[in-house]
Amino acid sequence: MSPLAELEAELPPGTLVTDPDVVAGYRADRADLVPAGHPLAVARVTDTEQVCTAMRWAQRHGVTVIPRGAGTGLSGGANAVDGCLVVSLERMTAIREIDAENHLAVVEAGVINADLGRAVAEHGLFYPPDPGSFEISTIGGNLATNAGGMRCVKYGVTRDATLGLEVVLADGRVLRTGGRAVKNVAGLDLTRLFVGSEGTLGIITAATLRLRPAPPAPPATFVATFPSAPAAGAAVSAIIAAGAVPSMLELMEHEAINAIEDYRRMDLDRNAAALLIGQADGYDAARQVATMIRCCEEAGADFVVDTQDPAEADGLLQARRLAGLALTEQGPSVIEDVGVPRSRLAEMLAALADIAESTGVRIATVGHAGDGNLHPTLILPDLEPATREHALKTAEAVCRAALALGGTVTGEHGVGILKRDWLAGQLDDTALDVHRAIKAALDPRQLLNPNRGW
Amino acid sequence: MSPLAELEAELPPGTLVTDPDVVAGYRADRADLVPAGHPLAVARVTDTEQVCTAMRWAQRHGVTVIPRGAGTGLSGGANAVDGCLVVSLERMTAIREIDAENHLAVVEAGVINADLGRAVAEHGLFYPPDPGSFEISTIGGNLATNAGGMRCVKYGVTRDATLGLEVVLADGRVLRTGGRAVKNVAGLDLTRLFVGSEGTLGIITAATLRLRPAPPAPPATFVATFPSAPAAGAAVSAIIAAGAVPSMLELMEHEAINAIEDYRRMDLDRNAAALLIGQADGYDAARQVATMIRCCEEAGADFVVDTQDPAEADGLLQARRLAGLALTEQGPSVIEDVGVPRSRLAEMLAALADIAESTGVRIATVGHAGDGNLHPTLILPDLEPATREHALKTAEAVCRAALALGGTVTGEHGVGILKRDWLAGQLDDTALDVHRAIKAALDPRQLLNPNRGW
Repeated sequence: MSPLAELEAELPPGTLVTDPDVVAGYRADRADLVPAGHPLAVARVTDTEQVCTAMRWAQRHGVTVIPRGAGTGLSGGANAVDGCLVVSLERMTAIREIDAENHLAVVEAGVINADLGRAVAEHGLFYPPDPGSFEISTIGGNLATNAGGMRCVKYGVTRDATLGLEVVLADGRVLRTGGRAVKNVAGLDLTRLFVGSEGTLGIITAATLRLRPAPPAPPATFVATFPSAPAAGAAVSAIIAAGAVPSMLELMEHEAINAIEDYRRMDLDRNAAALLIGQADGYDAARQVATMIRCCEEAGADFVVDTQDPAEADGLLQARRLAGLALTEQGPSVIEDVGVPRSRLAEMLAALADIAESTGVRIATVGHAGDGNLHPTLILPDLEPATREHALKTAEAVCRAALALGGTVTGEHGVGILKRDWLAGQLDDTALDVHRAIKAALDPRQLLNPNRGW
Repeated sequence: MSPLAELEAELPPGTLVTDPDVVAGYRADRADLVPAGHPLAVARVTDTEQVCTAMRWAQRHGVTVIPRGAGTGLSGGANAVDGCLVVSLERMTAIREIDAENHLAVVEAGVINADLGRAVAEHGLFYPPDPGSFEISTIGGNLATNAGGMRCVKYGVTRDATLGLEVVLADGRVLRTGGRAVKNVAGLDLTRLFVGSEGTLGIITAATLRLRPAPPAPPATFVATFPSAPAAGAAVSAIIAAGAVPSMLELMEHEAINAIEDYRRMDLDRNAAALLIGQADGYDAARQVATMIRCCEEAGADFVVDTQDPAEADGLLQARRLAGLALTEQGPSVIEDVGVPRSRLAEMLAALADIAESTGVRIATVGHAGDGNLHPTLILPDLEPATREHALKTAEAVCRAALALGGTVTGEHGVGILKRDWLAGQLDDTALDVHRAIKAALDPRQLLNPNRGW
C-alpha cells in the first residue's frame, strides 16, 4: 500500500483529499510575495484523533506537515512545501462549551472568530481579539499567529485571552495545557509558548478562551483629521502618555482614506493627511473621549468631532474595517505589519513617507495606532518579478525603520516565511539558538511547519 | 587553584561569600516543610556579566546553581542543594530606566517590588503586581514565580506586565527577549516562557516592565460579612458573573479575621464566618461597588458597608495585608495557594472546612477571591516530624480538592519543591515530558535549579 493510501485508510472516508484542483486551493495563504510548494494531499480533519493519526503517519514516512486554518495569513506561515501533507482544521468547528458564569469558552481550532463572537454575545459576553479577518479567519489561525485587532489596545491580544490549549505534538501525542483557573502557575507556561508559535511546535486543535462581559453600550467615539500623518502619530503618543484608556484607536493616512472613498463613499475627508478614529467604552467613555480629543487638538488636529450615536459610530468603524478590502482593490498589495513604542509613532510615519518617496512605491497606512502597530500597505502596479523584488526591498526598509525606532518587524501578523530574514535584525544569534533548541526538543525531525516563524 | 578560588578570582573582591554563617542564611526560602541543602558558596553579584562568569564556571566544574532573590518564596524554589553555588541577585538593584511616556521601566532583578512602585509613582504610574511580600520581595523573584497579588484581579499578574527580559542562560550567554513594542509577535514568546519558570531555564537579570497610569483617586471600597464562608464564595462568583470589575476582591474567613484581631486591633467582626473586602477604581468606581454590594446582599451577607473615605479604605486594606504576619504569629504555618474556577469558590471553601474538620488542622483562609485564588493557611502546633508529615498530607488534600473542582495546585506561589508530587494530579505525562524536553534543550546538564518547578 502506498503511504497516501495507508493514510487514507486510517482516516474516515472523504477526509483525505488528493484531487489536484482541490489541493491547489490549499497551497498558500494571502502573502503574495512568498513562494508556495505543491502538497501531496490535504487532510480535512474533523476531530483531534485524526490529527494524531496524520501526525503519526507523517513521522512514519518522514513527511512534512503544514497545519492550516482558513489561509488568511499574510506572512506565508501556512504556505505548502513540495510533497507535504496539509492538515486543514477548517472542519473542526465545534464550540464545545460556553461557561457563561466563568466567562470562558472551549472551542475547536476551525471556529471562525466572528462565529464565536456571535455565540457568546447571546450570553452578554464578547471575545476581544478581532483581527481584520475576523469574519473569515479561524481561532486556530488566530492562536497560531497570536492575532490582534482593533480591540487589543484595551483588551489584549489572542495570547492574553487564552487560558489553555489542546495541541497535537509532532510525535502524535495530545498535549493539554493550562486550565480554567484564571491564575495558574503550575509548571512552565506552555499555553503562551504555543500561542504565536505559527504551527512550528504543534498543531493547536482546541482552546479554552477567556471572554469578557460586553461593555455597557453605547461607546463614545471621535474622529479627528490632521494636516500631517506625524501630527496624528503625535496625538496618539499624547493620548497614551496622558493615561487615557481607548477601547479602539485607529489611524488611516491620506492614501488609505482615498482608497476607502474610492471603494465605497463613506464621507471621509479626502483632503486629510491622516485621521484618527477613537473609541472608549464603559461608564466613563465620554470622559475618556474628552481627554483624547484634547490631545488631538493640542497635536494640531484641524477638525474633531465626537458622537455617542451608535449609527454614526458604526459608520466610522465600518470605514476602518473596509480598509483592507479597499486597498486590495487598488492593485496587488502587500500589507506590512510593524510595531513601534507608542512615543515613536510620529517618527515612524515620517519614515514611511520618506520610504514611499525614495522607493516610488505607494504606501497606504492604516493601523492600530493605540498599540503602536501600523500596517503600511504597499500598493503595486503588478506582480512582475522586478516589481515583487522592489516590493520586498521596500517592505524590508519599512521593517528596518521600525527596528531603528526600537520596534518590531511584526506586531500581529507573524514572521511566517516573509519576515525571516528581517527578523535577524531584531533577534540576535543567542535568541535564535534558543528558538532552534526548543524546536529541536519538540520536533526533532523538523516535520512541523519547518523553516518559518523565526 | 581550587574551583572556588578560581571563581573568587574571576569575580570582583567581596562578591563570593564562603563564610559558613553567612552562607547558612542563603540555604532556604520560607517554605517550612521543604528540605534545604548546604551551599558551597554564595555569589552576591552586582551585574549581569558576573552572572555569566558564575554560570560559565559552574559549567566547567559541573556545579549546581541556585538563583535567589530575597528568599521570600513559599514553595522551596530557592532552596539550596548540597554543594551548590547560590547566585544571589539581591545587589542588582538598579532601575535602569523609567520611560514615563511609554509607561515602562527597565529594572534589574534585585529591585524590591515596592521600591519600583515608589519610583514610578513620581511619574503618576504604578506597577500592578503586588504580592503579599511586595515590601521585601524582588522583581527577579516575582518574575521567576510569576507572582500575583491583590491588584491582579483587574490588572493581571507579573507575566502580563512583562514586555521583555534579560536572562543568563545555562551556558553563560545572555538572552534578550521581547522589547518595547506592546504588540510583538516576532518569534516564540520566550519572555512568557521564562516568567514563571522558577529559575529552571535561566537566571533573569533584568526586565522591561509595563506600567500603568495611576487610577484617579480615591477608589470606592466595601466590606461585607457573611454567616458562612461558602456564602462569601457565592458572592464572589456572583460578582464575577455579573461582569463587575473589582480592582481588588479579597476574602478572609473566621480564623484569619481572628488572627488579625489578635495581632492588632482592626475592629473587624470577630464573629463573622467570612468577610469580603472589595474595591473599584476609575471614574465608575462607585457604580462597580454598588453592583458588588448587591451581589453580596443577594448571597446572604449580614452586614455591608461602603466607603469612599481613603483613611477608612486604607484601614481595611491594611487589615488584609496584615494577614500573613498575623497568621505566622499563631504558630508555625504553611501558606497554601490554590486556584479554582471562580464559580466554584463556595465549594472550595466548604471543602476546606471539611478538611480542617477531618484532619484536625486549623486552617485560616485568606485569598484573592476575585481571581479564584485562595491561601488556606495551616496553623501548626509545632514543627515536629509527625506534625510536618500531617501538615504535608493536609496540604495535599487541599490541592486535591482544588483539582477536583477544575482548579490548580498553585495560583501564584509556584511549584518549587513543595508541590512537585501534587502537580502530577494536574499535568499528565505528556505535559511533563514537554517540560523535560524544554529543560533538556536549554540546560542539558541540569545545573540550573534542578528537580523543582514541575
